[in-house]
Amino acid sequence: MKETLKEYNELVDEELKKYLKVQDENSRIVYEAMQYSIFAGGKRLRPVLLMATHELFNDKHSEALPFAAAIEMIHTYSLIHDDLPAMDNDDYRRGKLTNHKVFGEGIAILAGDGLLNKAYELLLTEIVEAQDPTLPAKAAKTIGDAAGVKGMIGGQVADIISENQEISAKDLDYIHAHKTGALIEAAMVSGAIISGAQPKDIANIRRVGKNLGLAFQIKDDILDIIGDEKQLGKQIGSDEAKEKSTYPKLYGLDACKKMIQELTEESNEILDYYLPKSDFLKKLNNYLMDREN
Amino acid sequence: MKETLKEYNELVDEELKKYLKVQDENSRIVYEAMQYSIFAGGKRLRPVLLMATHELFNDKHSEALPFAAAIEMIHTYSLIHDDLPAMDNDDYRRGKLTNHKVFGEGIAILAGDGLLNKAYELLLTEIVEAQDPTLPAKAAKTIGDAAGVKGMIGGQVADIISENQEISAKDLDYIHAHKTGALIEAAMVSGAIISGAQPKDIANIRRVGKNLGLAFQIKDDILDIIGDEKQLGKQIGSDEAKEKSTYPKLYGLDACKKMIQELTEESNEILDYYLPKSDFLKKLNNYLMDREN
Repeated sequence: MKETLKEYNELVDEELKKYLKVQDENSRIVYEAMQYSIFAGGKRLRPVLLMATHELFNDKHSEALPFAAAIEMIHTYSLIHDDLPAMDNDDYRRGKLTNHKVFGEGIAILAGDGLLNKAYELLLTEIVEAQDPTLPAKAAKTIGDAAGVKGMIGGQVADIISENQEISAKDLDYIHAHKTGALIEAAMVSGAIISGAQPKDIANIRRVGKNLGLAFQIKDDILDIIGDEKQLGKQIGSDEAKEKSTYPKLYGLDACKKMIQELTEESNEILDYYLPKSDFLKKLNNYLMDREN
Repeated sequence: MKETLKEYNELVDEELKKYLKVQDENSRIVYEAMQYSIFAGGKRLRPVLLMATHELFNDKHSEALPFAAAIEMIHTYSLIHDDLPAMDNDDYRRGKLTNHKVFGEGIAILAGDGLLNKAYELLLTEIVEAQDPTLPAKAAKTIGDAAGVKGMIGGQVADIISENQEISAKDLDYIHAHKTGALIEAAMVSGAIISGAQPKDIANIRRVGKNLGLAFQIKDDILDIIGDEKQLGKQIGSDEAKEKSTYPKLYGLDACKKMIQELTEESNEILDYYLPKSDFLKKLNNYLMDREN
């Protein structure tokens, strides 16, 4: 699995480098700020899921790569803005100083804006240059809807206003499904769309994406309680300190581990239809749930 | 002229309302924050330019409207982020409290992000639903490129890092052409593209858009020195207080007035080719240069 993961990561990193080259000395600093956070050691989960899903139905890597780069840019912009003092106020992410700690708040805000906009420049270029823009346009719209106020941003808003408050299980579901889940699901669904997959297969992939997104977030919550700070690259207990509602707080650790197991099993059952091509995705699915960071 | 301007504004406002309805109680506050700044009394310059340019070549209003709404969303997001304490730190805009003064910094950042993303959701919907997506895709890409680090964001970055510094005429040109000019030019060019205008006409429109953007910015600089605070809805002298470089500071007031006149005349000469349909654009062009706010 590690070999394949490394291959995907290298492809995605090359693609990201291509789009983030300094194009202008007058605004060099914002390119550097964008590069800093993009290459700060992220797991590349969303682009890898997009590429691996695409590969279930289609061998042409190259057509999925710009979409993989775009979704990583959107994810990274959301982290930069999320870390700002007015939001989560985090000084470190993955053991490195956060963007605003290095570049200042003003440039960090603009670097986030720049990455979000760059993602769409890239998607629109793919659409304009495609011989048949139908699938690229649909895939881009899937990503755009997931990133917006109906998706990720909506989740961030609900997360902010629920801080220091007791919230219901329903509200917590909303936050997780939107803040993290929407973009993970969109990564897999858009990968399937670009590949030319059939509606039935896209529906299957959507189910896997939903499960994986939720299980991933529950695992994150668990690691913030019982994780190893060195492996995580950040302090644990930050949810508790901010009085954030989490799945373990609401359901207890054992129930959460069981939820992850059930979600993972259901995903693997669906992925079994696509063996042997889904071998990597199954391993990735299992690995994500057993991870220590 | 005022009748036509009012008609365009009403069309654009209706369109904007459609896209900014509260869709979700969990994130109601961000919709309210987005609506607040969108309906805070802006001039609607960019959408009106887009609609009026489109109308030079094509009578179907409706196909240009979503693009007009999208460009106003992008403009408004940039104002919300620009007003933040980490950027220009402005408490008032057009006589009303800025977004973060009403909703707090966290929600203001997300409302800006939400508007930027919503603009692209809307553009991508137009592309996906078009019978022939060629022109909508090209128009959307024109807007996207102008909004990004190669355009507006690049200008904002150069503006921030040049504060409290003496800068050259070349650097000031860069800031103005990118921070304000790029999106104004893109409004007119994308309007022409959607209309199906010929390359020669698009080149003419690009020239007018460039002139208009620059003249508009020089006029803004002048009003910040000799404008009437009541009519402007904001304190004058803010550029001076922030030690910002401006055209009047660099060239003097008289030279600036002359520049505006020359730019406006050149634009009007080009627009003369398109009479009588360009009558409104010519009047708007003249009005913008004589405006008091």
